[in-house]
Amino acid sequence: MGPFLAAFETLATFDLGLWVKTGVQFGLFGGSIFFLGTERHHALLDDIAAARRLGCFAMSETGHGSNVRQLGTRARYDAATDEIVVHTPSPGDRKDYVGNAGAHGTLATVFAQLEVDGADHGVHAILVPIRDESGQPMPGVTLIDNGVKMGLNGVDNGRIAFDEVRVPRTALLDRFGRIEEDGSYASPIASPSHRFFTMIGTLVGGRVSVANAALSTSKVALAIAIRYSHRRRQFGAPGEPEVTIASYPSHQRRLMPPLAMTLALDLALEDLTRQYESLALVETDKRELEALAAGMKAITTWHCTATVQACREACGGAGYLAVNRFAALKADSDVFTTFEGDNTVLLQLVTRGLLTGFRQQFADDRVTGFVRFLVDRAQSTFHRLNPLETRATSTEALRDPTFQLDLLRHRTQDQLIGLASQLRSLVGEGLDATQAFNQVQNAALSLAHAHLEQHVLERVIEVEASALDPSLGPVLTTARNLVALHRIEWDLGWFLEHGYMAGGQASAIRREVEALCGELSAFGLGIVEAFRLPRLSAPIADLTEPAET
Amino acid sequence: MGPFLAAFETLATFDLGLWVKTGVQFGLFGGSIFFLGTERHHALLDDIAAARRLGCFAMSETGHGSNVRQLGTRARYDAATDEIVVHTPSPGDRKDYVGNAGAHGTLATVFAQLEVDGADHGVHAILVPIRDESGQPMPGVTLIDNGVKMGLNGVDNGRIAFDEVRVPRTALLDRFGRIEEDGSYASPIASPSHRFFTMIGTLVGGRVSVANAALSTSKVALAIAIRYSHRRRQFGAPGEPEVTIASYPSHQRRLMPPLAMTLALDLALEDLTRQYESLALVETDKRELEALAAGMKAITTWHCTATVQACREACGGAGYLAVNRFAALKADSDVFTTFEGDNTVLLQLVTRGLLTGFRQQFADDRVTGFVRFLVDRAQSTFHRLNPLETRATSTEALRDPTFQLDLLRHRTQDQLIGLASQLRSLVGEGLDATQAFNQVQNAALSLAHAHLEQHVLERVIEVEASALDPSLGPVLTTARNLVALHRIEWDLGWFLEHGYMAGGQASAIRREVEALCGELSAFGLGIVEAFRLPRLSAPIADLTEPAET
Repeated sequence: MGPFLAAFETLATFDLGLWVKTGVQFGLFGGSIFFLGTERHHALLDDIAAARRLGCFAMSETGHGSNVRQLGTRARYDAATDEIVVHTPSPGDRKDYVGNAGAHGTLATVFAQLEVDGADHGVHAILVPIRDESGQPMPGVTLIDNGVKMGLNGVDNGRIAFDEVRVPRTALLDRFGRIEEDGSYASPIASPSHRFFTMIGTLVGGRVSVANAALSTSKVALAIAIRYSHRRRQFGAPGEPEVTIASYPSHQRRLMPPLAMTLALDLALEDLTRQYESLALVETDKRELEALAAGMKAITTWHCTATVQACREACGGAGYLAVNRFAALKADSDVFTTFEGDNTVLLQLVTRGLLTGFRQQFADDRVTGFVRFLVDRAQSTFHRLNPLETRATSTEALRDPTFQLDLLRHRTQDQLIGLASQLRSLVGEGLDATQAFNQVQNAALSLAHAHLEQHVLERVIEVEASALDPSLGPVLTTARNLVALHRIEWDLGWFLEHGYMAGGQASAIRREVEALCGELSAFGLGIVEAFRLPRLSAPIADLTEPAET
Repeated sequence: MGPFLAAFETLATFDLGLWVKTGVQFGLFGGSIFFLGTERHHALLDDIAAARRLGCFAMSETGHGSNVRQLGTRARYDAATDEIVVHTPSPGDRKDYVGNAGAHGTLATVFAQLEVDGADHGVHAILVPIRDESGQPMPGVTLIDNGVKMGLNGVDNGRIAFDEVRVPRTALLDRFGRIEEDGSYASPIASPSHRFFTMIGTLVGGRVSVANAALSTSKVALAIAIRYSHRRRQFGAPGEPEVTIASYPSHQRRLMPPLAMTLALDLALEDLTRQYESLALVETDKRELEALAAGMKAITTWHCTATVQACREACGGAGYLAVNRFAALKADSDVFTTFEGDNTVLLQLVTRGLLTGFRQQFADDRVTGFVRFLVDRAQSTFHRLNPLETRATSTEALRDPTFQLDLLRHRTQDQLIGLASQLRSLVGEGLDATQAFNQVQNAALSLAHAHLEQHVLERVIEVEASALDPSLGPVLTTARNLVALHRIEWDLGWFLEHGYMAGGQASAIRREVEALCGELSAFGLGIVEAFRLPRLSAPIADLTEPAET
């Protein structure tokens, strides 16, 4: 798993279309068979790994993008013929945006509501042939190319509709739910809800890989923009040569916080990837890993979109020319924030994880007691953590990792308490779980962000303390300071509002961020060199050429 | 001028490539001849207006994008032949990204350093034929297409290099500087610096139009995303139909602040456009208008980039399909933030305007006295304005336009004082003007933002008070409240840090923004209908079709 993930991450630095095509074939299609199938299906894996058999992962539907549990595609077991009948009841239930469906896929893992003997067993995956060897759609299968997209046009995304398509009973990927030879349904997991989340949980690798690819994309963009900033000169004192744009504080403000965050996310994603590697093949409760992968996918892909944009603008007109790669980087990576789970939905998953067990407890009448417990617990942790009376403004104090982490931890705790209290009030007013959670949606998103930023900072501090290579110390420390103080600066309103900071301290933090941008800029070229990007291919990033040619 | 600007703004809602092509031909090329030329050149305008003669506006150079005053192209008057010799000394001095240069332009307005009889007279514009009627480059002219761009590929941007190209003396656009028949140079404006800024100042229309087009683009994106949000349903209470995504607080948070700001910018740009219309043909000091146009161009184009991005993400996978227009809207409008003046450079122009006369005073030894005067003046205005002791948290108090505007005015004043003081200190330490201004660059950008947000709010309040149409009152008031409080919320850190607000007030503002997003959402469909966009052309925005098809 490790080498595959590393190769996949590296591939993203070359071409994201090829990366998606690879991910669809090996990660999603192959992965679904590997993780959801049993021995008889695994016989296919050799052909899939050799790309002799190309396939699709048909989950999303036109009308059901985020709400996978309510997919419309039906899979009814017909005992008379021992077949499963796959059917698309309405246009909204068509499979949509499916990679490999537009042209190359011959077999698809189709997610559908399984019905056996009149009983509904929820979403299951079934292997359905969609094209014959000549490329023609199979009988009853309609395939429509999704048409031109913003980017990733090397990927043949398509729509799939099924008109009573029959496949043998054995086409069911039956690791977590099977149809016996006698036509009865059986599953090692009794609860349909638990079964659904276990199946979905095996697919967490997709989000880990999207996060890694988003970071690869950020690195490429930063490498181009930072190298260009050391070649490009504009303005200067009269009679002097013009100065490099890298030396302007406004340029440093634009590129250094994303560079620092890229380093921090790199460490956090390395940790996530390792966790995934060690758990992927183990049958265990992966909810914590899932929530973390969802959250890291969300913040890393948003980071990518913002970073690529900042880098493009930092290169002006030259950045607008396709030859300098931002056109493709932007267009191809844009979908990251909404595929493999819409970021807004994913962050709510993170928050639900933080409100452990909230929904289950919510459903029964112990709810008030539970929420009170939660608030009490948070409150006590909170008091324990609350010696933040320093009001320090010195550089030394502000650059203390304990100070920085304390602030981020207080924010998470405080927002968790606030959210739990709000939910308690809403329930008291008679709202049900869905209504209550919807009303506090923005607070929930804010909490997820706070939690993830804290998590990232913790990972950086951990690596910094491990002193992996002493010569890296100054770079890592500067980056950690910038990440921490830049995020605190971004949310100064919150920290001041809630009494975690005094006005003078806030001003000192702004000054510190400004100084750190300058300090990290001195390492800029070295850091992007250390990304070891196999090939940059953007003429404006070529430091061996004379400037302005 | 009025009808042209209106038509041009409307054209931007259809296709930005066509819009640029139109702008290059009529606005930039035609405009340069109209504003910088004299009677003999104006004879060309009929052919230009009828598009019988296509041309270029050749200002930017590969090595000189923002620093127009230091352009490298030379234009030496050769008295012996009564010709001007146009020459590109080095690759960095090539004209670059010039619209109409790649394929269609036959004549170019070329900005170059004019040298007459050994004396340098600074940047002037000269008409140079670049292609013959068969499309071949003229002798000595090298034309290279810029290649594929991120967007706007219907525009033939190109590079132009001149190898001692000779044109008659009369090719000089000589309204502000001429070569007499006796070969001497003359200008109605004695100061070379004043002359340069007067010439450049006539071109302010380009920035007004880019701002308007950026707003048109924002409107199209919002219209598509908001209409889609009322069709698209995801999730819901068990047993209930799924709910529209428009009803989610997180979705409203994403789309309503940009919608409100789009309305506010619309009013501010209408005012700017009127000012431009009334001043364009008048020979007067336009520095204030120029600074305003520069600033509005910067904030509106950034608003456009962020709004199109938010709208794309709000439409998920459907937003990624080219047929739904975000691909083109994003790719085509992306360059807005860096062409017709890089936004970061433009905002510094705004700040320089606020620090009236600072640089000139700076150059001589009255500097300390001047800065002290500036600080004193700002300080006294500041005290006069400072009765902000209300600490109000009621909805009524927070929605009071005077309260909102006071906050924004305080911010501008306070930051102006801060910046002037910083500059005074730096000069005290012996820095020169350029060094000092560079060091405070980020504070300068922040001040420009503060000033422009205040300006926009002032325009909205003005229109609101004029009660143009009473039925619009509730919409406009809701939008104004959201714009004001959302911007204040964004900068809560600053307001709390500087004692303009108490923590409880900050929390109340957050709640108010949340409520206003919901209130404006109720008007959402009506507002985008009121944009009267001639044609939307995005299938997902079609409310007459059944959802999810």
